[in-house]
Amino acid sequence: MMLLGTQRLNDRDHLEIGGCDTVELAERFGTPLYVMDEQLIRDNCRKYLAAFGKRYPRVKVPYAGKAFLTMAMARIIQEEGLCLDVASGGELYTALEAGFPADRLVLHGNNKSEEELTLGLQSGVGRIVADSVFELEMLDRLTRELGRDVSILLRTKPGIDPHTHRRIQTGQEDSKFGLGIKTGEALEAIKLALTLPRVKLTGIHCHIGSQLLHLDTHLDAIQILVDFMKEVQDATGATLDEVNVGGGVGIRYLPEHQPPSIDEFAERLIGTLEQRLEESGLPRPVLEVEPGRSIVGEAGTTLYRVGGLKDIEIPKEPGRRIYVNIDGGMSDNPRPQLYEAVYSCALANRSSGSETRTVTIAGKHCETDILIWDTSVLLPRPGDLLAVQSTGAYNYAMASNYNRLPRPAVVLVKDGQADLIVQRETYQDLIRQDRIPTRLT
Amino acid sequence: MMLLGTQRLNDRDHLEIGGCDTVELAERFGTPLYVMDEQLIRDNCRKYLAAFGKRYPRVKVPYAGKAFLTMAMARIIQEEGLCLDVASGGELYTALEAGFPADRLVLHGNNKSEEELTLGLQSGVGRIVADSVFELEMLDRLTRELGRDVSILLRTKPGIDPHTHRRIQTGQEDSKFGLGIKTGEALEAIKLALTLPRVKLTGIHCHIGSQLLHLDTHLDAIQILVDFMKEVQDATGATLDEVNVGGGVGIRYLPEHQPPSIDEFAERLIGTLEQRLEESGLPRPVLEVEPGRSIVGEAGTTLYRVGGLKDIEIPKEPGRRIYVNIDGGMSDNPRPQLYEAVYSCALANRSSGSETRTVTIAGKHCETDILIWDTSVLLPRPGDLLAVQSTGAYNYAMASNYNRLPRPAVVLVKDGQADLIVQRETYQDLIRQDRIPTRLT
Repeated sequence: MMLLGTQRLNDRDHLEIGGCDTVELAERFGTPLYVMDEQLIRDNCRKYLAAFGKRYPRVKVPYAGKAFLTMAMARIIQEEGLCLDVASGGELYTALEAGFPADRLVLHGNNKSEEELTLGLQSGVGRIVADSVFELEMLDRLTRELGRDVSILLRTKPGIDPHTHRRIQTGQEDSKFGLGIKTGEALEAIKLALTLPRVKLTGIHCHIGSQLLHLDTHLDAIQILVDFMKEVQDATGATLDEVNVGGGVGIRYLPEHQPPSIDEFAERLIGTLEQRLEESGLPRPVLEVEPGRSIVGEAGTTLYRVGGLKDIEIPKEPGRRIYVNIDGGMSDNPRPQLYEAVYSCALANRSSGSETRTVTIAGKHCETDILIWDTSVLLPRPGDLLAVQSTGAYNYAMASNYNRLPRPAVVLVKDGQADLIVQRETYQDLIRQDRIPTRLT
Repeated sequence: MMLLGTQRLNDRDHLEIGGCDTVELAERFGTPLYVMDEQLIRDNCRKYLAAFGKRYPRVKVPYAGKAFLTMAMARIIQEEGLCLDVASGGELYTALEAGFPADRLVLHGNNKSEEELTLGLQSGVGRIVADSVFELEMLDRLTRELGRDVSILLRTKPGIDPHTHRRIQTGQEDSKFGLGIKTGEALEAIKLALTLPRVKLTGIHCHIGSQLLHLDTHLDAIQILVDFMKEVQDATGATLDEVNVGGGVGIRYLPEHQPPSIDEFAERLIGTLEQRLEESGLPRPVLEVEPGRSIVGEAGTTLYRVGGLKDIEIPKEPGRRIYVNIDGGMSDNPRPQLYEAVYSCALANRSSGSETRTVTIAGKHCETDILIWDTSVLLPRPGDLLAVQSTGAYNYAMASNYNRLPRPAVVLVKDGQADLIVQRETYQDLIRQDRIPTRLT
């Protein structure tokens, strides 16, 4: 198996994460269980700050909270000195309740409501990333009504087609997000923004896509953004002081995945930026990257209890398939269904005792919710503990109660200590919002 | 627009459902809002009972709760005299808490846990649909330990490939569900079941797939099941007394969808069953169908508030696209992302006042969560109310808190009365399960 972060096999032949025996975690907290490797999260935060900080004088790294955000996670991000991206009123509320400094918050969203913008303005968020002319006009009105100033970035579309799942492509011209650079929409919006008395345009933002395993698109994007900053300067006289190129690098879901290192990402991105700045004669802006998945993705492991197996005859090659049932599925990890996402798994309670076989990991929902097709693992037995790796991003964040399954607990592990950061839902929680009208009682 | 169930345009030119003005519902309960048409739900229940009951003497109709289950919904199903399928401990708990009679409950699942089976046995559910030999062995042990008898159906795989999205195909041989008929696995399991002292095998079950718009596969399935019942009789001497062919018919998501009527479904299914029974010489078993989507799907409408629009230049044909932002998205309806599901929509607050245009309805999440691509509607303006139709099944049931969006309320409407049956989540609800370990405070 891949050993990610602090994962290791301990002397009881159990998978250990953060110095905690996963067999004990499963007994103590139940399954399915999300286990988050705090040290790896912190290491990733530090790698971003170090890799960019040592190469470039003006850097900000906002963590993209959409990947995984709880109050405890907000505290870790705060301690590590990152900024925090929030993409809704709920994410903003969570950060504020955790005591995250508002001036280090960046508020995102392609359709922020008046209520969300008001919450952002009143709490004094550091930046709002304005997505449209409609939003600029709303910001103009709200800042005047509330008597508040705000610093904004403008979200642009560089018109790049990255090589990732089309639903997580976000920077192409035909997108709900941002304003087109090539079409002139972004420049028009900037001209408008520069006229707004309480709205201070500090820079531009783009986001190309997620889980990118090559750097080319990031490098293309930064060049397009610098060229556009030059165009803005020429057209308006305004020199923008911040440039945000969106998400970080991809992660390893399978052993064969080879994402660029954070260091390589910083090296090449900053090299390209510096070169383009020199060519354009622009001063150095603050450079911002917004990693989400690459901070938390590999730090998450989901523990499942194995139920029954089905070793069945199938009409196509190779003629048989072994289905391994687990006690979770698409409610705790919808990514295989949403994006054909792939995962790696291994038994957590033993690394020997049965032969290695190709099996299919099946969820327990009322449809064909296969978590992993045809993966090679020690043949599980009922009661074994299965660890699915790299589930830290967009798993808990996207979890549902489909089939009225309670959502799992999240445990933060570090140096042998395990702390609950999200409590498991109970059956009682499932009916908490339910109401029976009197005419039906 | 399609007018489904009790939908009509009222004299204020507003969409009305269940005698309630949707503009008023949105003001009173907020948006996004799931509106459930109680009369249509009840009418669909009655259609199933009538269509099958008048053609065949022995019929049971369990509603498939996975499509939409709340305590209020369980009460409606109880009042209408249907049975209720539950597919997890949480669905079972919800039904029991609503006071649903346990003996009319059917417990499903490809990987029921010992705890779920125990809850089912102790509460006295009418049927457990056993999915595997592993489960039969567990049922044998648990019924002895608990001193409880149980009636079961055995879930079989007829080996049929229906024409529906592959993730909601469930009756093919290469499936996590059930036991193969053609492979002999089902017969072996039946022989085992017949030896278990406290487990009473009453019949067989299959489920082919969901949202089927043609009846052929249901007809194929019933023939295969009857033939298999004959095979069971010949091999074991046991005459099975129940046959369950799984889900109901598909529904209308778009005006051009033409699913078979419930009456046609009953007519053809029972015709085929009777003929095959006659050929095989078997007595009439209880016939069971399990409609979910076709009970609640068309009865649900989601109301969204329109935010900004983007009318943009795009590099491909037709050269422009109008994105219409709404205040929900994949968190309240993940089906477009999961299954390429299609939907129909219309403005709820007016049926004139702008020209009809082709627009794309975009969710507010941090990815390309397009709810409807290229749909023809009156060009919306910010603040308009948009009704997306046929969202009653697998929308609330699969809703998540992605991007920490609170899940919408569900309102039940009938005869001008609107009752909250699921309360909207608040920002406070989003952090209810969050814990901050002391070392992070």
